[in-house]
Parts: sequence; C-alpha cells; structure tokens
Amino acid sequence: MTFNERFNQICSNRNSLVCVGLDVDLNKIPEFILNKNEPQVYFSQAIIDATYEYAAAYKINTAFFESYGANGWKAMTKIVNYLPDDVIKIADAKRGDIGNTSRMYAQAFFQTLNFDAITVNPYLGYDAVTPFLDDEEKGVFILCHTTNKGAADFQKFSNGKKALFELVAETIQKWNVKNNCGLVVGATYPQEMMHVRSLVPDLSFLVPGLGAQGGDFDLAIQYATTKDGLGAIFNFSRGIIYSSDGEDFAEAAGKKAKQLREDIIKINEQRFKKF
Amino acid sequence: MTFNERFNQICSNRNSLVCVGLDVDLNKIPEFILNKNEPQVYFSQAIIDATYEYAAAYKINTAFFESYGANGWKAMTKIVNYLPDDVIKIADAKRGDIGNTSRMYAQAFFQTLNFDAITVNPYLGYDAVTPFLDDEEKGVFILCHTTNKGAADFQKFSNGKKALFELVAETIQKWNVKNNCGLVVGATYPQEMMHVRSLVPDLSFLVPGLGAQGGDFDLAIQYATTKDGLGAIFNFSRGIIYSSDGEDFAEAAGKKAKQLREDIIKINEQRFKKF
Repeated sequence: MTFNERFNQICSNRNSLVCVGLDVDLNKIPEFILNKNEPQVYFSQAIIDATYEYAAAYKINTAFFESYGANGWKAMTKIVNYLPDDVIKIADAKRGDIGNTSRMYAQAFFQTLNFDAITVNPYLGYDAVTPFLDDEEKGVFILCHTTNKGAADFQKFSNGKKALFELVAETIQKWNVKNNCGLVVGATYPQEMMHVRSLVPDLSFLVPGLGAQGGDFDLAIQYATTKDGLGAIFNFSRGIIYSSDGEDFAEAAGKKAKQLREDIIKINEQRFKKF
Repeated sequence: MTFNERFNQICSNRNSLVCVGLDVDLNKIPEFILNKNEPQVYFSQAIIDATYEYAAAYKINTAFFESYGANGWKAMTKIVNYLPDDVIKIADAKRGDIGNTSRMYAQAFFQTLNFDAITVNPYLGYDAVTPFLDDEEKGVFILCHTTNKGAADFQKFSNGKKALFELVAETIQKWNVKNNCGLVVGATYPQEMMHVRSLVPDLSFLVPGLGAQGGDFDLAIQYATTKDGLGAIFNFSRGIIYSSDGEDFAEAAGKKAKQLREDIIKINEQRFKKF
C-alpha cells in the first residue's frame, strides 16, 4: 500500500485529522517531570497515551531532541519506538541535501529510526528529494508554503505568472509517481493554501499553523482537505502538549486533542453533511 | 571578533583554503577499521591528525552520523570535540525551520556541540535564518547555488531579471549585519559563482564540488575568492578521506590535502603574484 493510501486509511479508520506535534522543550514541560529519568521520554509517553484515541498522526520535531545532543537523539529513538503502528509517525526534520547525503538521511529516519514519513526542504531540487521517495510505503512532506512571516521572502518570489511555492507544488505533483508525496502548507496563509490544493489534487497535506500560530480553522479545513474530507492532517504542538503545566498535563492534553478532533469533524460535517 | 574576520584570519594564518569534509561512511572506510571500537571516530581522528597541517576547516556532514542513530550522534560529538581550536568547525547540517525551532537547532550545533558554523537552507526566510545569527562569532553558510543537477529545478527559477539563487545572495548580503554570514556556492556552476561573488563582496564562501563532483579548479578559485585571495574555502570530502583503503589511509589523505592546498595556492599566486 502506498503512503498516501495508508495516510487516508488511517485518518478514516481513526476518524481523526489531528496530528500531535512533539516539540518537547524541557523549559516548557511541567517542572516535576525534570526529576524523572529521561524527562523528554516520560513526558512524550504520557502525552501519547493520553492523546492516542484522538490522533491520526504524531510529528516529532528533531530540533528539540538534537538540542540535547546524543542523549536527545536517544530519547527521540525511544519515543518513535513507543508510537503505536496504527498512527502516522512523522519526523519533522526539514532535511535535504545532494543525492548521496539525502540517501543517508533517508536511512537515518526510515531504517535506523522507524518513521513513516519525513519533512523535506525542496531548495536543492529533484536529486535531493527523490532518495526519500524510493520506498512507496514511506512518505515525504515537502515544504511548499510555510506558516511564518519570512515565508514571503523566497516562497513568494514570482515570475509574474507563478510564485516559487506554486512551482514547488506543481513540481512535486509530477514527482509523485509512487503516490508517496505530500506537502507542508501552513494554515496561516489560507488563500495560498486554497490555490495550492487546486494545483495538487492528489498530494497529502501536513498543515501546521492552527493553534499557537493563529491560523483560521474553517478556512484551513475547507481548503486543505480533499472532496472526501480526507487528504490532510492538522498539526498542533504547543496547542496540545502544553495544555497544563500541572500533574494533569497528560489528561489536559488528551482533552484538548479530543476537542480539536471534534472541532475538525464538525467543520468537515458542515461542509459535506458527512465525514 | 566576527565570524567572517576569524574565517579570513584562520585561512591566512594557516595559509590554506582547504576544508576537509568528514562524510564518514562505514561502507567506504578501510575494512580493518570496522573492527575498532567506534570506527567513525577512529577513522575521523586519524584523518584529522594527518590533514591538520594543511587544512583551514573541517566540515562534518551530519547525515552520515545520523544514519547510525544515537551512536552516530555520539561519534559526531567526539569528533567535533577532537578538532583543534585553530580550524573552522562546520556542521554541514542544512537545517532551517520556523523561529522557535531554528533557535533549538542553533542551540544543538553552537552550544550543545561546539561548532563554529553551520549550513542553513534559506527556503523559510528571514525568521528561520536569523536565530542562527545571534552570536557574531558563530557563522552561517546559507545555501545559494548548490553543486547538483537538481539545483536548476528551483534555484534558477527566474523573474526575467534575477533567479532565486541571486535573490538569496542579495538578501543574505542585507542580513549580514553582524558580519557572520556566508554562502554555499557550488564549483560545478562557475558562471553562476562569478555572478554571485559580484553581488556579495563581503560574504564568506563555502565551495563544494571540486574533487569527486568534478568542478573546475581555476575558475572556482578565481571566482570564489576575494581580492586578497581569501574569502572562500574549498571542500573536499571523498576526494581526500578515501584516498586509500589500506593501512595508509590517513597518510594518503594527508598527502592529498597537502597537494590540494598547494594547488590552490599556486592558482591564487598565478592570479595575484602573491598569496
């Protein structure tokens, strides 16, 4: 089964488009956890247990683990191994390099670590992206239009007919020969998202920018999902995992994930009268 | 002292523009080393010892260590700690993400690990690059025009007046307020390199693509360096470190580094009648 087929199957089976972002910052997790052995692992496992019922995917942000060196990488390994097999496991790593190096990154995240998908930066072009696409079961979310203010600096560079992010979208649609490509499209730029979706009907979207970054729910869900109400997952990091800094942090995260899952279903139902 | 000042001071003091690229692949190092404890560390330390006299910089390619998981990260930590303080220590990591995540990457490579500089991907724009620029002593080489065939896919996207890689160069020149920005400009596209240098007189260049990737020495050195014959370093990975697969691997790498250093000096001398 190709990655994009499995992506939609999991979202459908779990009746959820929620991705839980594990940006595990020791300065933000409840203080009492700092006394535990491997606090990043302890925190993440509790969050996974509490949110699993409501999530379609988990996204591990590699920066937050690399900042703790080899021990952080060890923690990340334990966390990805802890994730159940019926969710989508995404390495938010934003990698990309010339061919022989991209092959090493693909090995790092798809073989040494057991991720299902990775985020990749398109700047280096075809031979930098394709080493991640060899295995149809493994997915690649290529950065298209990001959530941040600086997204305009280069992604909106235009030749008058199209902007770079549109060229990236069209190009990735062509590279999607194994049906395992997706795009990262930020919810903070809904018009751009709508346009990207019109260019790439078949690609899966990973949508950051709702929650802490302030993107509009209705527009993002309307524009990112495909005709069947699938085709996209919506990531929440800070918006879920730091819902409480007390002993109830996991319970609070679970409640928040449940609510977000329901909010998204409701918006989708209003569009289609079904989900 | 700013990074770019120190960059030129080290190249001048060491009379070398050679960067040794540590792309340490266990499938390519001499077989007898695989029996050693921590073969990536053993190999790298021997290469560093043998090439140190001839090198201005070392560039560690993170992919080759991440592919071995937490143990690879541990090996990378040992190798960067082993590097002497009078060479430039570059993490070839090609990172870049939204602000709070880029800050974590900066912490990972500039604090947890003791690198002097990092390679960064510009696609996400200003707020993704600037967290790496806070400390004037730490340098950032932003991808401008890469060596690979796929570089044309997006980097040459043009509005008729300028291409994306030229916009990136001009933009980074503006962001270089602390004199700690550089660019990655591949030797395999000499015309583009010449043009980039004309746009950014003050930025340091990290130049891959000579050696295994086949770039032209004369043109690259002529176009990348500044008027004083400094301003650029030339990276050789496979071209130095895999010079022999026998017991003499380190000695052979040292000889190759010595020769490359002399070749570059000679070309520079022919241009300026001095170095």
